[in-house]
Amino acid sequence: MSSTRTPAPRGRRPGAPDTRAAILAAARHRFAEQGFARASIRSIAAEAGVDPALVHHYFGTKDELFVAALELPVDPRRVLLPAIAEGGLDGAAERLVRAFLSVWDEPEIRVRLVAVFRGVLDADGERLVREGFLPVVLGPVGEALGIDRPELRMPLVASQMLGLIMLRYVVAVEPLASLPPDDVVAIYAPTLQRYLTADLP
Amino acid sequence: MSSTRTPAPRGRRPGAPDTRAAILAAARHRFAEQGFARASIRSIAAEAGVDPALVHHYFGTKDELFVAALELPVDPRRVLLPAIAEGGLDGAAERLVRAFLSVWDEPEIRVRLVAVFRGVLDADGERLVREGFLPVVLGPVGEALGIDRPELRMPLVASQMLGLIMLRYVVAVEPLASLPPDDVVAIYAPTLQRYLTADLP
Repeated sequence: MSSTRTPAPRGRRPGAPDTRAAILAAARHRFAEQGFARASIRSIAAEAGVDPALVHHYFGTKDELFVAALELPVDPRRVLLPAIAEGGLDGAAERLVRAFLSVWDEPEIRVRLVAVFRGVLDADGERLVREGFLPVVLGPVGEALGIDRPELRMPLVASQMLGLIMLRYVVAVEPLASLPPDDVVAIYAPTLQRYLTADLP
Repeated sequence: MSSTRTPAPRGRRPGAPDTRAAILAAARHRFAEQGFARASIRSIAAEAGVDPALVHHYFGTKDELFVAALELPVDPRRVLLPAIAEGGLDGAAERLVRAFLSVWDEPEIRVRLVAVFRGVLDADGERLVREGFLPVVLGPVGEALGIDRPELRMPLVASQMLGLIMLRYVVAVEPLASLPPDDVVAIYAPTLQRYLTADLP
């Protein structure tokens, strides 16, 4: 749509790479510094030296910008939400675990996810998880499931999935690291199903 | 017992502080480099420039030396094992979670445990967890419980406890971070009891 004479971008993504990169760098910085809620598109645009409209043009909503700033190899919402859309709460945990494993068990994707995971334990990373990942990524999953008390249930789900990631993929403890996906599902789906649906204090 | 004229150590611990510190530094280095199983007391003593007998004198067994090298503010075996000794498998998970919370909910201990936890995601730390923490710390807990397949069940328990640590204490996600201990027990004990005792694939 632009009529400027900048050369066509070579990457797969639209937009001038430098501008995109500058916006993403500014977004990571502001989100980490101020948290997801307080970092505004306006302040991110200012830091990147671009017009706020350009941020929206490249990235859409603030949620989208946040997920892009995480630089995940896959958008977790595109993995998890279809798994939920397939059916109701019955068997939702099993579909979640399977969707999750389908991504993490791919060696090339896993390498990049593990790198992101390590970053989570920086002070900045913690804030991104607390104020961004949980509301932006897990929030829509809880909403799609239509569960009560999603603000408690989704962190419980996350607490088991994070521990599983840590031991199966990051620390790679046996026999967890080599367990066939069906066994992982059989072990963990009942835990998650209870967190999603059981009576809780 | 020593008749040398070095000044009496000022700390609470017996032994010349420099020697102890040198042994611990060597132990951390060898355990991280070679793993728990392959690092020998002899090689650790050699790296510290002391006699192997002195390592045994200060630290006892290799297991004890390993736990000392982790520099935890509390020895997890002294927290978890008594909780198990109180009763059989019935209610074991609840006692485990309570023992665990009694330590982590102490602000002064927590600060130091969080620091240890962050170190776990270094490559060295991962090896310590995989080859040391699980067999040395969780192994005896599984043994004391007398469960079948402890080599699978204890990592499952760890996978939930690590995720809980991460969200409740390290990232401090609400409402998990402020949940009363009784609620944490009500939520997590059934998960752990199932990992300890249920039929698993």
